Amino acid sequence: MGSEAALLLWVVMVAGVVVGGQSKFMVYNTSHTIVTGKLNVHLVPHTHDDVGWLKTVDQYYVGSNNSIQGACVQNVLDSLIPALLADKNRKFIYVEQAFFQRWWRDQSQAMQLVVKQLVSSGQLEFINGAMSMHDEAATHYIDMIDQTTLGHRFIKEEFNVTPRIGWQIDPFGHSAVQAYLLGAEVGFDSFFYGRIDYQDRAKRKNEKSLEVVWRGSKSLGSSSQIFAGAFPQNYEPPSGFYFEVNDASPVVQDDPDLFDYNVQERVDDFVAAAISQANITRTNHIMWTMGTDFKYQYAHTWFRQLDKLIHYVNLDGRVNALYSSPSIYTDAKYATNESWPLKTDDFFPYADRDNAYWTGYFTSRPALKRYVRIMSGYYLAARQLEFFKGRSKSTNTDSLGDALAIAQHHDAVTGTEKQHVANDYAKRLSIGYKEAEQLVSSSLACLVEPASRREKPTTKFQQCPLLNVSYCPASEVHLSEGKSLIVVIYNSLGWKREDVVRIPVFNEDVTVHDSEGNEIESQLVPLVDAYVSLRNYHVKAYLGHTPTQTPKYWLVFAVSIPPIGFSSYTISSAKKPGSSSSRSSVYTFNTSETSTVEVGQGNLKLTFSTEQEKLTNYVNSRSLVKETVKQSYGFYTGYNGSSDKVPQNSGAYIFRPNGTFLIKPEEVSSTIVRGPIIDEVHQHINSWIYQITRLHKGKEHVEVEYIVGPIPINDGTGKEVVTQITTAVDNNKRFYTDSNGRDFIKRIRDYRADWDLNVNQPVAGNYYPINLGIYMQDDKKEFSVLVDRSVGGSSILDGQIELMLHRRLLLDDSRGVAEALNETVCVLNDCKGLIIQGKLYFRIDPLGEGAKWRRSYGQEIYSPLLFAFCEQDSDNWINSHRPTFSGIDSSYSLPDNVAIITLQDLDGGKILLRLAHLYEIGEDKDLSVLTNVELKKLFPGKEISKVTETSLSANQERRLMEKKRLVWKVEGPSSENDDSKLSRGGPVDPAALVVELAPMEIRTFIIDLVPNLVSSV
Amino acid sequence: MGSEAALLLWVVMVAGVVVGGQSKFMVYNTSHTIVTGKLNVHLVPHTHDDVGWLKTVDQYYVGSNNSIQGACVQNVLDSLIPALLADKNRKFIYVEQAFFQRWWRDQSQAMQLVVKQLVSSGQLEFINGAMSMHDEAATHYIDMIDQTTLGHRFIKEEFNVTPRIGWQIDPFGHSAVQAYLLGAEVGFDSFFYGRIDYQDRAKRKNEKSLEVVWRGSKSLGSSSQIFAGAFPQNYEPPSGFYFEVNDASPVVQDDPDLFDYNVQERVDDFVAAAISQANITRTNHIMWTMGTDFKYQYAHTWFRQLDKLIHYVNLDGRVNALYSSPSIYTDAKYATNESWPLKTDDFFPYADRDNAYWTGYFTSRPALKRYVRIMSGYYLAARQLEFFKGRSKSTNTDSLGDALAIAQHHDAVTGTEKQHVANDYAKRLSIGYKEAEQLVSSSLACLVEPASRREKPTTKFQQCPLLNVSYCPASEVHLSEGKSLIVVIYNSLGWKREDVVRIPVFNEDVTVHDSEGNEIESQLVPLVDAYVSLRNYHVKAYLGHTPTQTPKYWLVFAVSIPPIGFSSYTISSAKKPGSSSSRSSVYTFNTSETSTVEVGQGNLKLTFSTEQEKLTNYVNSRSLVKETVKQSYGFYTGYNGSSDKVPQNSGAYIFRPNGTFLIKPEEVSSTIVRGPIIDEVHQHINSWIYQITRLHKGKEHVEVEYIVGPIPINDGTGKEVVTQITTAVDNNKRFYTDSNGRDFIKRIRDYRADWDLNVNQPVAGNYYPINLGIYMQDDKKEFSVLVDRSVGGSSILDGQIELMLHRRLLLDDSRGVAEALNETVCVLNDCKGLIIQGKLYFRIDPLGEGAKWRRSYGQEIYSPLLFAFCEQDSDNWINSHRPTFSGIDSSYSLPDNVAIITLQDLDGGKILLRLAHLYEIGEDKDLSVLTNVELKKLFPGKEISKVTETSLSANQERRLMEKKRLVWKVEGPSSENDDSKLSRGGPVDPAALVVELAPMEIRTFIIDLVPNLVSSV
Repeated sequence: MGSEAALLLWVVMVAGVVVGGQSKFMVYNTSHTIVTGKLNVHLVPHTHDDVGWLKTVDQYYVGSNNSIQGACVQNVLDSLIPALLADKNRKFIYVEQAFFQRWWRDQSQAMQLVVKQLVSSGQLEFINGAMSMHDEAATHYIDMIDQTTLGHRFIKEEFNVTPRIGWQIDPFGHSAVQAYLLGAEVGFDSFFYGRIDYQDRAKRKNEKSLEVVWRGSKSLGSSSQIFAGAFPQNYEPPSGFYFEVNDASPVVQDDPDLFDYNVQERVDDFVAAAISQANITRTNHIMWTMGTDFKYQYAHTWFRQLDKLIHYVNLDGRVNALYSSPSIYTDAKYATNESWPLKTDDFFPYADRDNAYWTGYFTSRPALKRYVRIMSGYYLAARQLEFFKGRSKSTNTDSLGDALAIAQHHDAVTGTEKQHVANDYAKRLSIGYKEAEQLVSSSLACLVEPASRREKPTTKFQQCPLLNVSYCPASEVHLSEGKSLIVVIYNSLGWKREDVVRIPVFNEDVTVHDSEGNEIESQLVPLVDAYVSLRNYHVKAYLGHTPTQTPKYWLVFAVSIPPIGFSSYTISSAKKPGSSSSRSSVYTFNTSETSTVEVGQGNLKLTFSTEQEKLTNYVNSRSLVKETVKQSYGFYTGYNGSSDKVPQNSGAYIFRPNGTFLIKPEEVSSTIVRGPIIDEVHQHINSWIYQITRLHKGKEHVEVEYIVGPIPINDGTGKEVVTQITTAVDNNKRFYTDSNGRDFIKRIRDYRADWDLNVNQPVAGNYYPINLGIYMQDDKKEFSVLVDRSVGGSSILDGQIELMLHRRLLLDDSRGVAEALNETVCVLNDCKGLIIQGKLYFRIDPLGEGAKWRRSYGQEIYSPLLFAFCEQDSDNWINSHRPTFSGIDSSYSLPDNVAIITLQDLDGGKILLRLAHLYEIGEDKDLSVLTNVELKKLFPGKEISKVTETSLSANQERRLMEKKRLVWKVEGPSSENDDSKLSRGGPVDPAALVVELAPMEIRTFIIDLVPNLVSSV
Repeated sequence: MGSEAALLLWVVMVAGVVVGGQSKFMVYNTSHTIVTGKLNVHLVPHTHDDVGWLKTVDQYYVGSNNSIQGACVQNVLDSLIPALLADKNRKFIYVEQAFFQRWWRDQSQAMQLVVKQLVSSGQLEFINGAMSMHDEAATHYIDMIDQTTLGHRFIKEEFNVTPRIGWQIDPFGHSAVQAYLLGAEVGFDSFFYGRIDYQDRAKRKNEKSLEVVWRGSKSLGSSSQIFAGAFPQNYEPPSGFYFEVNDASPVVQDDPDLFDYNVQERVDDFVAAAISQANITRTNHIMWTMGTDFKYQYAHTWFRQLDKLIHYVNLDGRVNALYSSPSIYTDAKYATNESWPLKTDDFFPYADRDNAYWTGYFTSRPALKRYVRIMSGYYLAARQLEFFKGRSKSTNTDSLGDALAIAQHHDAVTGTEKQHVANDYAKRLSIGYKEAEQLVSSSLACLVEPASRREKPTTKFQQCPLLNVSYCPASEVHLSEGKSLIVVIYNSLGWKREDVVRIPVFNEDVTVHDSEGNEIESQLVPLVDAYVSLRNYHVKAYLGHTPTQTPKYWLVFAVSIPPIGFSSYTISSAKKPGSSSSRSSVYTFNTSETSTVEVGQGNLKLTFSTEQEKLTNYVNSRSLVKETVKQSYGFYTGYNGSSDKVPQNSGAYIFRPNGTFLIKPEEVSSTIVRGPIIDEVHQHINSWIYQITRLHKGKEHVEVEYIVGPIPINDGTGKEVVTQITTAVDNNKRFYTDSNGRDFIKRIRDYRADWDLNVNQPVAGNYYPINLGIYMQDDKKEFSVLVDRSVGGSSILDGQIELMLHRRLLLDDSRGVAEALNETVCVLNDCKGLIIQGKLYFRIDPLGEGAKWRRSYGQEIYSPLLFAFCEQDSDNWINSHRPTFSGIDSSYSLPDNVAIITLQDLDGGKILLRLAHLYEIGEDKDLSVLTNVELKKLFPGKEISKVTETSLSANQERRLMEKKRLVWKVEGPSSENDDSKLSRGGPVDPAALVVELAPMEIRTFIIDLVPNLVSSV
């Protein structure tokens, strides 16, 4: 007997059929649908299940560690199914796929069949459908796409459905990229969220403009707009309608034989709450989010009350209550043919009340943020190498993909989770990395072998994930013993790439040979004390041992790597004195000396004043930009609001400074390191800030490497450390920050486009999230700063860009995490405050010329070169192996304005390919144009049998998605909203297989390859 | 398709069958049964659902008022069924039928069928099976039997099963009557409980004597013994094994793909806890009570973990874990053939640690305790009248039975519930009373009519439930207008009864005529001011109005009522001066006068010294007892232990006195009221204690009526008011208190038979519950005090009996109720402390002669005469109606040592009859003997077609019950335990229909009557 029969019988059994007799079993009528002409209250049963926050994702799933928070997602899903089976009118939405997938794997086939039927009938609807409900401030758009794709494709594969609705109900502000890219481009019909600025919300409630049409991209305009709704408050039920096990809301007591019968009171409460919401909402449809964090532990408790409310409220008749979903609600809104206010840009920053700007989390846990970003780039590269090798069940990129997906959660990369949970995310990334690293090594091992040996490659590559603290056992070998070190350097970008690389070495006399065997120029830069202690402390902390030997030098050399490919470099001990690397000249001077020092071997030269706080000249002899630039450090003291009437401290979420303090560089020596490839200026800013300003031959930007921490707290106050770079650019309050590393959005200090801003936090209220960079301009120049992870930043003074690099706080900010953001690193039980090491990059260009650097170099920051090392006893490695490789046609290179953001081997001979135009409309005179990519050139030696363009999350055909897209009407004269001049790439001709990309366009394809036509790779 | 199929399918669906594939669905092996030679851990999933405590019974059922306590019994049962269906090895016990019946009525027929199947398969077992888990200290055995019967018969009727196990896991001490009467006599095979004295428990753990054979009755001995087990601690799971939704115990994380896999740790925890318990337990069977108060809100959360524990613990193999029940556990214990320590007497008083004697609740809420007792007697009488009239669906005694059943709960009559819950119990009793009152009135109306008019009786009887505060609208009529007042007085005892009754009247000149129309002697006693204010305040408080007129007198007259029948008395205005009632002589004297006053019109005379604190002589000229008796009042100040290391206040549960304070009578006037029928001595003890000492003509006991309250708290301390009656009886620390109004148990001050008592509370630790009375004796005399409700009492000094009458406390005693026991009565918003009015009765007899009074008068106190009033315009009421009636054969009367404790019309022509021998073995030389009752005489005019003797709770044939009774072995030489001299009544000859009753024996019968053979009644 099929499970359909079982399903049916259980429904009969539970919902019952009153056959008559003594039982006073009550049957509730819950079958109501929309009633035109009445106020329709859409009851949307839901649970909001954080993929980690106070507990880890697995703890939330199995319900362990309940002393921290009583929450068990397994309960939610376990209890949901019988509750839905009991009444076919009941509905539920489920959102977070990281949890759902865990649950799904635990189920019997019989249960899976039942659930499939519930999904197919619409009783259970997947909403949002990503692995996690990602943050929208500190996340990179590539990560957002990847983790959404993981969730969406699972849903498609298991249930053959595509989520229709965006549901970002908890993230702390909302990004333009979320609205247009992860909304419209995913094929969503609407997008709902809970948190917008309190001032904004007040105005929108007043003007009934909580629901809008949001056009998030200037470049894509109405072709990527979406219906978007902010809830009247949070994502919880109206007060008094919480029905979790043991909740205090009054249950509907409708048994006249028991005491406290209260049906009329509860109906009156319901109607009053509905009318109150109707008064701030357009159309006669309102949505009630019936649930909140980790609710429906026992789903029955909610549904029993909702059944009763629907039954009695509709008997009452004043309003119409129905089981609904965001999809049904969206369709109902659409059916009203209403016009909606237009919303552009984004909803940042978010404040939930005076002095409570959630702009601290843009920087919170900077190490975790950096780790996520490194893994993101690595995951992109690893999937390329996985494709070249062919996907394997055993060693693959799946764990890393899962770990990254979870890390995008709005309490993960945000830094707003408890410390043990942050550790859990890091652990997952580490495990995922380890597996991907193995895959990368073995893929490279295959690729370096000649075709004959490819099946059983012998090379064992090592990689160096701790290179950031100068630790690389693979390169730290004594080459004097006749050994060579082979470094295979992989470039995941679609362009040939010229870069300078750095590897720690023991030997003083080494030579570097390129893939052709030619000796190339190299430079030895001494490993300074600041780095040695960084290295030794963290190797001990993370690996449990202290390295016995310390490399004396960074070996620096320039490399050239083909697109989506690698080159190999051989490092060996110098055979003859003259052929070894140049040692850098090192000059140390005291800040008391009054003099200037110029550095830079190429077009860009910087002049440092040795006097503290003196200006630095920035001169580019090519672009003729000349500017005085001053960089400084400072900190804000974390506000202690514990004794205020409405207590508000600075904390993991909230940035609330209590005064600004400039850090004056201490009077200690600075060191100048010079050589043929790089020049560096080392400065001890103070005892806990070390900075290296670095110029590379052939590059026209300044690289600033900083080591910040441990932030001292012995004065009892938390501190939030910023760096300011000050120029004379006359930006008149205006600056630009990226949205999730993609579109730049204009910001104006102390101003909001959507309402008259009441400024109560002149610093915190002007902070914005930065993933790619920030820039400002005047009529001559533009000044850009790029970052290596998400940070918060602003321009608090004209000409100045400020970035928050690190935060260490001693108080909790009362948003639930209940822990002070006080990160430490421990060796055994000796813990000290977290030290952050990072880089930022800046450059000043003539007006109109900055975008090219921001976009192309930004992509290089996101996708750094990938190193794999192996030792070789003899010299002939290069001759016996394939020293260089490109995955694409050797004659081909992607246009400068395009990146392959996904190249992934799907199971079954299908390839997932995403191509991204990197420029916005009008950003660059040459590159902000329609461009194209020849697919055939991307897969040399393989035949493309089919190309299917899909939605961004690759779960439906783009064509069908466009066909069913709801076309929302926008308020106001159509001339104002006309964007018909904007274009998108046209259809892909199946013969030519050329993909057009308009500015900011990302196109996603599933490509069927005929395997191994010619085994050229 | 039958529900069996549905059941089967759901089991398949949930428990699943792994058909192979991607799912890693886990199937746990939970099929383990007992393994000989291993330690067997019997896991007993259970919930303990208080039938009212912090919330009312209905609030607990529907889950309202959750802000007080998150608890919803509906959830428990709703969630239980699918959890049991999911795995046929899972078991659950359900206890409290008040909840189960509420739930059952809500279920569909389909669900009822499923549940019946679960009960029949043993997965769901009813344990205890009474309506509530009654208290064992403040409850009367008749109430215990009634409420157990209600539950057991429902279970029998709906499920055809009989509960096998007593389960009194939470009551605060355990009574002998519970063990033998509500245990063995109900047919239970064992009896489990959680709370015994901490010193006792420590010793028993040490000696492995937590489990015993309990022989509760001296009279019935081993024929009524039961296997009885105290839990090692409370009734909760071992620490760390709580699995309620959101509980903090670590769940078994057995998914190796998730973090924090902990199977071995949890198995180790389990084994350690098992071994620890095994070390204090005989045999290799231990029971774990897997649940606690209101747990299994979502049963799945428990069963999921228990499944895993059973699976993995048994894989581990060190111990054997199994789903079990108290029945299975009992059978396993029995199968070991072990001998057990013998336990006699009871487990009172209960202390859970030093200075924490739960002896306060013996008296807490004395008004509720009295209300329950009044209703209990009324319920007994009302069911008799219901039987005479014939049971009706519309107006019956069911609500009162239900209300009384619930009121026996161990947080109801105990006084340990929150105030609003106490109000709820009172409200239920009041509603139940109202319905029963209507039934009683209409039954009496039928019975007073001649046979011809019986179908449509015209008489409208009124009753006076507020007679205790002198309020009786029915009697407060102006008889001068030619009206007569008819008082029908019903006697529910099986003996003819001579008593003195009191009715408030307006008129001064009234005469009283008996059923034969003869004028009888009567006396008018002035209604004193103390009563007038009591009356006016409480009528205003409870009825909302102030009576316009106040009766001046109590009309007092002696009555004689046939067994199980009534007589009618006519009160009319006196036709001629000489025939009216005697007015009492009233003499008031001041305490400053030095003189003595003698009162008493019969054998008993008391001499009061008018000087305060002077002794009173007690002289019985018949029995020649002469004694000096002193009665005094005092109070204990409630201990404030809030600043102690282990805080322990005196509170609703716990009596912890902080010093004793004698209340010295104030120097005010006392009043002597004398008359032909009663003499009274009125004394203002102080401004809040008023006392009347009353002697009735023809009675040889002293009746003391007290009005205590409001207890003053303006000094900021709570007080517990006691009265002491001091004699010269040389009792040498020994005294006797009843067990639930039935067997008397010897108490020895500062001593326990079962262990060496460490005395830390010399007063509170010597308190015992008293329901019927307390007595002491020396070699000449015995001094007995009977009470009108349950109270706490002791003999703290030799010769003295102390009773706690009232408690008003300002602090909570930290046992969960979280409220101070500070009862008030409010008129509008003006509240004052509760005033208690009550009676106690004392008598001094020659040694060996006290029992007869205690037993027979005790039964009269329990079953007071029932008054029904009607007005009559003419004199001929008696001629036109049946003025007197007896429900039994007019020639018959029950033996003096037997009471009918139940006579109840069951549906379907069956009668429930319970006959109780009232005497213990050896208690009275004449009455402690085998006696008999002629059933035929009890049902005159009806033919008995069948007599079936049943268990006490009338849910199984006694014969079958005896047949399957487990015979437990007792430790020690059999000579010590031999009680073969004890006897019980023999089988009932179906022809003779004579029931033999041995001392203390209660026999229960279902009697089939052939209806209306002769309509003699």
